[in-house]
Amino acid sequence: MNDLKHKKDHALVRRAKAVIPGTMYGHMSVQRRMPSGYPQFFERAEDCRLWDVDGNEYLDLMCAYGPMILGYGNPLVAEAAQRQSAKLETATGPAPVMVELAERLVEQVSHAEWALFVKNGNDATTTCMTIARAATRRKVILLAENAYHGSAPWCTPVQEGVVAGDRTHLSYYQYNNVESLFEAAARHKNDLAGILVSAFKHDARVDQEMPTPEFAKAVRRICDENEAALILDEVRAGLRLSLDASWSLLGIQPDLTAWGKALANGLSLSAVTGNENFRQAATSIFVTGSFWYQASPMAAALATLTLLEEAKAPQYLEKIGRQLRLGLSVQSQYHGVPIRQTGPVQMPMVLFDDDPELEKGFEFCLAALEQGVYLHPWHNWFLSLAHTSQTIEKVLEATNHAFEKLAQSR
Amino acid sequence: MNDLKHKKDHALVRRAKAVIPGTMYGHMSVQRRMPSGYPQFFERAEDCRLWDVDGNEYLDLMCAYGPMILGYGNPLVAEAAQRQSAKLETATGPAPVMVELAERLVEQVSHAEWALFVKNGNDATTTCMTIARAATRRKVILLAENAYHGSAPWCTPVQEGVVAGDRTHLSYYQYNNVESLFEAAARHKNDLAGILVSAFKHDARVDQEMPTPEFAKAVRRICDENEAALILDEVRAGLRLSLDASWSLLGIQPDLTAWGKALANGLSLSAVTGNENFRQAATSIFVTGSFWYQASPMAAALATLTLLEEAKAPQYLEKIGRQLRLGLSVQSQYHGVPIRQTGPVQMPMVLFDDDPELEKGFEFCLAALEQGVYLHPWHNWFLSLAHTSQTIEKVLEATNHAFEKLAQSR
Repeated sequence: MNDLKHKKDHALVRRAKAVIPGTMYGHMSVQRRMPSGYPQFFERAEDCRLWDVDGNEYLDLMCAYGPMILGYGNPLVAEAAQRQSAKLETATGPAPVMVELAERLVEQVSHAEWALFVKNGNDATTTCMTIARAATRRKVILLAENAYHGSAPWCTPVQEGVVAGDRTHLSYYQYNNVESLFEAAARHKNDLAGILVSAFKHDARVDQEMPTPEFAKAVRRICDENEAALILDEVRAGLRLSLDASWSLLGIQPDLTAWGKALANGLSLSAVTGNENFRQAATSIFVTGSFWYQASPMAAALATLTLLEEAKAPQYLEKIGRQLRLGLSVQSQYHGVPIRQTGPVQMPMVLFDDDPELEKGFEFCLAALEQGVYLHPWHNWFLSLAHTSQTIEKVLEATNHAFEKLAQSR
Repeated sequence: MNDLKHKKDHALVRRAKAVIPGTMYGHMSVQRRMPSGYPQFFERAEDCRLWDVDGNEYLDLMCAYGPMILGYGNPLVAEAAQRQSAKLETATGPAPVMVELAERLVEQVSHAEWALFVKNGNDATTTCMTIARAATRRKVILLAENAYHGSAPWCTPVQEGVVAGDRTHLSYYQYNNVESLFEAAARHKNDLAGILVSAFKHDARVDQEMPTPEFAKAVRRICDENEAALILDEVRAGLRLSLDASWSLLGIQPDLTAWGKALANGLSLSAVTGNENFRQAATSIFVTGSFWYQASPMAAALATLTLLEEAKAPQYLEKIGRQLRLGLSVQSQYHGVPIRQTGPVQMPMVLFDDDPELEKGFEFCLAALEQGVYLHPWHNWFLSLAHTSQTIEKVLEATNHAFEKLAQSR
């Protein structure tokens, strides 16, 4: 990447450096998280294409880190949002669309008998914990070591500014490790409010893992025996693996589920669904926010859910995900550059063997970027309905080039 | 209010009862918070008018509990949001508008040398606390008893589901009580990270209080002496009292400020601004959210800030606020129904003497509602640029009727 290709981006980065902490904070900070050469600022997005501020075009496999599931600027979603927004947006009371969306989720999600709407995915995971504690009148929530559930003080992966009290009543198990789960539960036998568990193990920088049936059953069993809440965090995975809560695929129903990201195809909306056992507790707590009743993201969510159902989204994403995984596997073998592809194909994770410092990953992703494909070296990617079989072929052309370059440079 | 007038509303409430905890949660739950007869669901909003789902029209003095400051559906804000949204909304990286908005806040807000953007006001207050703790490497935050700073477990006013750890490192003073402030600070002398303070005392159900100069100076002095952060919560009051941080009116600069509600005239956006001393700490923490980089609310905020400046919003709101306060005062005396009007005129708070159970307040507000004016019996109201002198006259016609009814019924 030469400077000329990113001239406007670099100028904006200089301006950002003056007025935004660390130039850019959080998961969209390119400088702190991505190979040098990635652009920070984008001008336009359409279907699965992105244009940075210098006009360079990319096929995007990050989908805004999940929210985009139907394609950027999906016209039906935009129209639904726009139509609602022209009538009523954030007002002194909610719009009818809030009831329609709650009814829709109750219809679509097996365990759901009610829904409430929040903004951040983290609002949803936090609210689930609060409901579990209110319902059980107990305090401890078990969660998996290194799992990401948001960036509130109780869960942010960086400890700066976090104080002990933020995590006093949390205890940790290892994902898919039944023994560690039983041990953690036994340690808090009389104070167990709930078990928080991600749809699958999608921790950054490591191989992903689908939940084993034994693990999922053990989580359910411990919750049943202790009358604690099984809280499923679907914020990242939701709607890509299943249009139901994804543990339904294992025959396990959660009590509470946190939804976010893809729910409104990029508009700001998250949700909690729960079963009857937790309705009273959900009623007893006080949670709210200035924009939690904002109507157009709810209209967008209704449109999104309809389109996902019509397209049988999880199956479609599985199909193109398999195409991508197979292609990458063949290329890896052909070029003699071993990779590990883990987790569900709808959310590809590609890590290189013998790459503790991610140097291969960085080199590979930067080479793909130069070919116009935006990948991530240590976070799962996301597929969308805007990715076609032809898109995947184009992605594979770029990755073939990247594998070739990597093979030559080593 | 007869049933016929709210037929559609009642039908929606019945549906909501089945699928939403408690029919409606949080501050927009009419059933749990407002006089019986208030509608729950709204169909349309325009300038300062609301139409409920049965087509009944209201002059709205709640402004969505603050977010609406320029009028519902302000065309310039809607156009700015729409134009940005058509290009890029939530994507794999932020849009240039994020830098423009940060620059704008740094220019506009005296203490601000940087800004970061979040969704909920509560994200902003929480992030300020995290930054204060990271900067000082100390734990305790002082806050005022009964102050509302959001509904996260550390601050929600209802204790259901809240556990001790959530508030371990918080300690309380009384707003405007310098002695209680010094006492609280002395108790945590060696562990004081910051003092969180609302722009003014806007607690629900009680008389409001502007900060006294002595109190504001004491907060600043304690923070200076302890190298702790003065954190101003402007979420509710921001942009109505001043376009700068509102303690600037007292000559006191905060270190960190939480902004929300009115920032984007109803689109979902909140922010933190801070000074140079806290930039490094703001850089060191990890906070983020799936929608925190969403571009159209930032474009809306830029348009909102421009329009507020052009209109000299705080001065305009003060003018119509004075008109309303004077009118209510005259009516109260004429009808022999004593009221207390407290806090800034831009955010009117009206409470009735000898009304511990709010019965008079409920009766008054319901009578005004029947005249087509939406007020609140125990929460401050909000004024906006869409409220004209003629609007206030119409409001006063309704309140005159309400005072008359109240005088007759007692």
